[in-house]
Amino acid sequence: MSTGARTVTAPGRSGVVGARVPRVDGKEKVTGEAAYAADIALPRVLVGKVLRSPYPHARLLRVDTSKARRVPGVKAVITAEDTPKIPHGLFVKDTYPLALERVRYVGDEVAAVAAAIEEAASEALELIEVEYEELPAVFDPLEAMAPGAPQLHADRPGNIAYQLSVERGDVEAGFRQAAHVIEERFTTHATYHAYLEPIASVVSYGHTGKLTVWASAQEPFMTQAELAEALHLPPSDIHFIQPHVGGAFGGKTMDDNHLYISCLLALKTRAAVKLVNTREDEFVASRPRVPTVIDLKVGFAGDGAIVAKEARVVSDNGAYTSRTPVIMRTTCIRADSLYRLQNLRTHGYLVYTNKIPTGSMRGFGNPQMHFALESVMDMAARELGMDPLALRLRNATQAGDVTVHGWRVASCGLSECLERTAAEVGWRGARPAPGASGTKRRGVGLACATHVSGRRHFGNYDGSSALVKVNEDGRVVVLSGEGDVGQGSRTIFAQIAAEELGVPYEDVDVTMADTESTPFGMGSHASKVTFVGGNAVRVAAADARRQLLEITARLFEARAEDLAIQDGRIFHRELPQRALTVAEAAKAHIYRQGGEPVIGKGAWDPPSELHDKTFYGNISGAYPFGACAAEVEVDVESGEVKVLRIVSAADVGRAINPMLAEGQIEGGVIQGLGYALCEEIRNEEGRVLNPNFSDYRIMACEDIPVEVKAILVEPVDPYGPFGAKGLGELVVAPVAPAVANAVAHAVGARITSLPITAEKLFTALRRPQASRPATPNR
Amino acid sequence: MSTGARTVTAPGRSGVVGARVPRVDGKEKVTGEAAYAADIALPRVLVGKVLRSPYPHARLLRVDTSKARRVPGVKAVITAEDTPKIPHGLFVKDTYPLALERVRYVGDEVAAVAAAIEEAASEALELIEVEYEELPAVFDPLEAMAPGAPQLHADRPGNIAYQLSVERGDVEAGFRQAAHVIEERFTTHATYHAYLEPIASVVSYGHTGKLTVWASAQEPFMTQAELAEALHLPPSDIHFIQPHVGGAFGGKTMDDNHLYISCLLALKTRAAVKLVNTREDEFVASRPRVPTVIDLKVGFAGDGAIVAKEARVVSDNGAYTSRTPVIMRTTCIRADSLYRLQNLRTHGYLVYTNKIPTGSMRGFGNPQMHFALESVMDMAARELGMDPLALRLRNATQAGDVTVHGWRVASCGLSECLERTAAEVGWRGARPAPGASGTKRRGVGLACATHVSGRRHFGNYDGSSALVKVNEDGRVVVLSGEGDVGQGSRTIFAQIAAEELGVPYEDVDVTMADTESTPFGMGSHASKVTFVGGNAVRVAAADARRQLLEITARLFEARAEDLAIQDGRIFHRELPQRALTVAEAAKAHIYRQGGEPVIGKGAWDPPSELHDKTFYGNISGAYPFGACAAEVEVDVESGEVKVLRIVSAADVGRAINPMLAEGQIEGGVIQGLGYALCEEIRNEEGRVLNPNFSDYRIMACEDIPVEVKAILVEPVDPYGPFGAKGLGELVVAPVAPAVANAVAHAVGARITSLPITAEKLFTALRRPQASRPATPNR
Repeated sequence: MSTGARTVTAPGRSGVVGARVPRVDGKEKVTGEAAYAADIALPRVLVGKVLRSPYPHARLLRVDTSKARRVPGVKAVITAEDTPKIPHGLFVKDTYPLALERVRYVGDEVAAVAAAIEEAASEALELIEVEYEELPAVFDPLEAMAPGAPQLHADRPGNIAYQLSVERGDVEAGFRQAAHVIEERFTTHATYHAYLEPIASVVSYGHTGKLTVWASAQEPFMTQAELAEALHLPPSDIHFIQPHVGGAFGGKTMDDNHLYISCLLALKTRAAVKLVNTREDEFVASRPRVPTVIDLKVGFAGDGAIVAKEARVVSDNGAYTSRTPVIMRTTCIRADSLYRLQNLRTHGYLVYTNKIPTGSMRGFGNPQMHFALESVMDMAARELGMDPLALRLRNATQAGDVTVHGWRVASCGLSECLERTAAEVGWRGARPAPGASGTKRRGVGLACATHVSGRRHFGNYDGSSALVKVNEDGRVVVLSGEGDVGQGSRTIFAQIAAEELGVPYEDVDVTMADTESTPFGMGSHASKVTFVGGNAVRVAAADARRQLLEITARLFEARAEDLAIQDGRIFHRELPQRALTVAEAAKAHIYRQGGEPVIGKGAWDPPSELHDKTFYGNISGAYPFGACAAEVEVDVESGEVKVLRIVSAADVGRAINPMLAEGQIEGGVIQGLGYALCEEIRNEEGRVLNPNFSDYRIMACEDIPVEVKAILVEPVDPYGPFGAKGLGELVVAPVAPAVANAVAHAVGARITSLPITAEKLFTALRRPQASRPATPNR
Repeated sequence: MSTGARTVTAPGRSGVVGARVPRVDGKEKVTGEAAYAADIALPRVLVGKVLRSPYPHARLLRVDTSKARRVPGVKAVITAEDTPKIPHGLFVKDTYPLALERVRYVGDEVAAVAAAIEEAASEALELIEVEYEELPAVFDPLEAMAPGAPQLHADRPGNIAYQLSVERGDVEAGFRQAAHVIEERFTTHATYHAYLEPIASVVSYGHTGKLTVWASAQEPFMTQAELAEALHLPPSDIHFIQPHVGGAFGGKTMDDNHLYISCLLALKTRAAVKLVNTREDEFVASRPRVPTVIDLKVGFAGDGAIVAKEARVVSDNGAYTSRTPVIMRTTCIRADSLYRLQNLRTHGYLVYTNKIPTGSMRGFGNPQMHFALESVMDMAARELGMDPLALRLRNATQAGDVTVHGWRVASCGLSECLERTAAEVGWRGARPAPGASGTKRRGVGLACATHVSGRRHFGNYDGSSALVKVNEDGRVVVLSGEGDVGQGSRTIFAQIAAEELGVPYEDVDVTMADTESTPFGMGSHASKVTFVGGNAVRVAAADARRQLLEITARLFEARAEDLAIQDGRIFHRELPQRALTVAEAAKAHIYRQGGEPVIGKGAWDPPSELHDKTFYGNISGAYPFGACAAEVEVDVESGEVKVLRIVSAADVGRAINPMLAEGQIEGGVIQGLGYALCEEIRNEEGRVLNPNFSDYRIMACEDIPVEVKAILVEPVDPYGPFGAKGLGELVVAPVAPAVANAVAHAVGARITSLPITAEKLFTALRRPQASRPATPNR
């Protein structure tokens, strides 16, 4: 079993890695056959419904469920009194599955019902009598930090859920060296994951003493562990089965109360309960992206070298804490490894407000700081009179670097991403001049980003494990607990196993994650599944391969090292006519005296380390990098921005499946554009104003640029499976600053507050500084 | 990985082995929560129904499904034309899922329907037009062998599906030494398994290209392989999931057409189909016990030694061949290892008749020959003037023997079983004299039996494999593909894993069998699951234990061999205060640099061998033995037999769970009594006269003897897991001869044809020889 070993070196054996093979679950999904959590059918399943607070902050004086309980067909009406009253939260335990004594946001879960039919559940919900005493509320994180603000949690004075400071080098000395200092406040907003499948769960409980849970969760084993703690059960009493998941994007880490409530209803009724979020439930009570206020100050030497950086980050936690402490830490720290910084100081504050609790979303806290930093880079280039591309290349992190926070960058395609993006968009020379006249002005902007491929955090472990069975007919079954939430990890695992084993891709099946039958895995987060899970699958496949070669060697009276496997055929390298199929070998491995099935076992943990108390340390096994260029057309009369073209290059180490990698890039670009331009959960006194897709605009087909060009940069990471690194989250981060920079290039106006709406740009264009012409080809 | 190694020696570590712990699935089952195949709920599942032949033998001239297909709601009506026309059958491939050109018994499957609702399916069934041309039929196997008999299969002249001859030593010389020769014809009959759950299946098919099958099958992986062949699919395209199974007793080996038809309907409709046998379907078209005509001749020396045996066996195959060739072989051979025989000759003929195809049932072909042989033993004792107990002990096989067919008997409790049974029933001295006067006469009879614990047959492999996961909370999950059909194997595996690991029994879960996620196993047959599957679980648990000890040794800076595990606690033998829980160790095994979950892998194949062409060879890893005594009261006026008491001793090697072992004995005794006295599938011109539980009498509570005393004999087998051998089938075999011998003891009449009905006994008692008084205490 290999640990953090360099697994790449051997070239692909079957050419499956790197091939544009179709997804293993493609047909099922496009035909509608794939079963998602809400499709799970159990006999006599009850319908769950949740009663939510209409107030942003109130004391619960009385919750009377007696009338509701009398509705025919109602099997249970539960409140906090029916729960173990154990708060959950991965880092700060402040969330009760049902509100205890107080509600803290509009949408907070107060009670829940399970009934035989939906109508009875709805009727019961209406009959629950709740008496609230309204309390003063606070909605803005800066106001919430101020003295005298309403306090959300008694044990968190000043509404500070978490704070951190990090300092490296000598910031003051750095700024003293600076020829130019850019200082600006950037604000980012809450956005919703907008996955196709709302959060749903089916939970069954009975005399086995086990909860069987089918839910749209992205981390089967971690969800099992977190549920167990809050429900006061041993984890193994929760059998979690991951059905198909219709997108997650960080929103299905189950930090919200949905799954706790369906489990509590099942426990209470000793039955099976189905709970399916409405789209409105999602908008008012899931865990959207963390809004952030970033005050950023960066000093540059005359040659463009970044000499100092100082930042203050205020992250809006909403009413309760999900994984926001680490999201904020990501905002504070991660972008620092993009460039060769030495001197920096960052303070971060995670602040409670009486709004929907925020949480993880693709990119974690990274898009927020990348928007600020990459905007500042363009602002600095202008000040320095440098080409923004040249400025980035001047500072860019390179392979072999140990960054300011101790990241050991084993592979790095950042400069290549920048160069290829620039080339593709026609940056050098052909970078289109902004339309100097007329109402439609064009501009091009650039930004880059970095991320992780897994992040060592939980108990000094960031690994994965897998089993690879080879069946008698030569078909291979990969068992992994990582799961697939739509990103295609089952496809990637099938390719890795096929490549390592030397069998056709079509011969590999990958099971769904199931806490009983699949090996432990941490699930989809931190862009780790391909990198870490893929390596575990590779190690397991290599173990299965060894078994196939050994039995064949015995049958051929040859040495295993003289044998090879290709296209499902095992042959002697020197006597290629001596051959067996993998099926024959697998069968021979069982059917003999002392036989056994071919089962490969694999585990892999990356060569990363926990950060120290100052947050210094090589937290991930590999770091992906990327760059994005946006070409926009701004209507100076309306302030409307139209994106004409996006070029996005990602250093994926190596693309296991270029089609899926490009899909990740395209999806990330679109999600990034939504973040940049139109998506925003809008609030008024804590009430969400647009809790539906009519009022909350995601990028629809008509909004998507004519061209989204994906470029795969493949430096081949020494630790990645066949060289691959994480990708999914990376690609979102550079989109918003690329658009902001393109807008500034087109019309000179610098928008520092996301989203870049027509309204904001219209106003900015009418401010005095907006009238100065943009500098072409700065 | 150990192969055939002696695994017993270490005493139980936690005392779980040998304990009367409750079944792992007890609560689920008694509360009705456990889901059986018919309980599997899928959205939009279609209902399947089957059209059967009303004729015992006919040519299919026309099958017109056009009207049936027009019934609203009907999704498919299939005939042989819709199938790949590949016959199935484990040994003789003569069975088409739907009859091709000809039907050969009343019940033969002609067509099948899948419809949205049951009413539509029924209506469609009625609208299928079938034109038959009746053919002459034959119902008696001896008649079927005669020249001029109607022929069932063109390629099997003389209606012989299979025949064998086996000869050892010098039979003629043996008989020349004989002081007494007993020669008699014995006949046995067809009985039904009478499991609670009729055969049922739910099969889903769609764009995954896989059939997902939930069915009441007792051999998940073998069923997968057999289905695949007949459906012309790779086995891995069939994902078999074993739900709870409500008893199998050999009847759920899926040799009948049920599952082929539900799969074909699913393939045809590209949907999910549920097919549930009615009880009548079971009686007319499952695979009941093989009726047999045995002509047996045994020679005895004056001292009681068996000097020669000659047998002719004619087994009634019914219309098609299931596993009957090997069942007949078992009838011909297996009982020969009960005694120290040297000279024998046996001919066996498996003969087609136009009746329900017969098949495997608890005991395979063993109860048939045991009835004959153990009746002959009593007849001989009478001739020899010996005590039947003494005669058996005189000839009994002993540990260390290599029997006439090459079985290496490593452990043998036969004599102890006989002695303890006799002692319990009060045989010596107190053996009650038959009531010499009055209409109710009492008698006591004895019989013994042997069986196998697995049987090497398929590709020189008779092993099993398992995985044992230890979760972070210390809970253990055993993954085995053997499955549990109600015999309690999941409970046994939990005990074995708990014992080997040193954790509490309650901390072990055992998954259901699933061809995708559980390792390969051959399933429930040949009484092998505890012996072979249990050893694989033990090896896997030992591997997991090693991992737990290694991590603890590292944490303690101690040597693994100085550590022990007991009650879920790992401690240093010399410093017992240095201790960790298994949960802590399992967690520490994952959460560390280079960590991985604790997953033990185990495989085990017994030290048995394939028999040679003469059927000589040590076919099983261990041989269980048993004895049974019956005390009966015969009403000489009516011929009715009332069983007052049964004592059954079984050499189980070691009882992993004495409660379950006793349950097996009790159930086997009751099933054996039904075989002996009342159960019989009766036919008239090929039509089953009693296809329901009103007319087919199984032993009901009122019929069951006041006392069924189970005795566990535990010589501790050197190869068994903690010494255990197979048990389930053994205990049926000696019941019928014990009852026959008791009846003979009571009233002097020897019934040689099962079942021993009041009618037969009434007639026998009125035959001249029945009038001679029985000899007390022969």
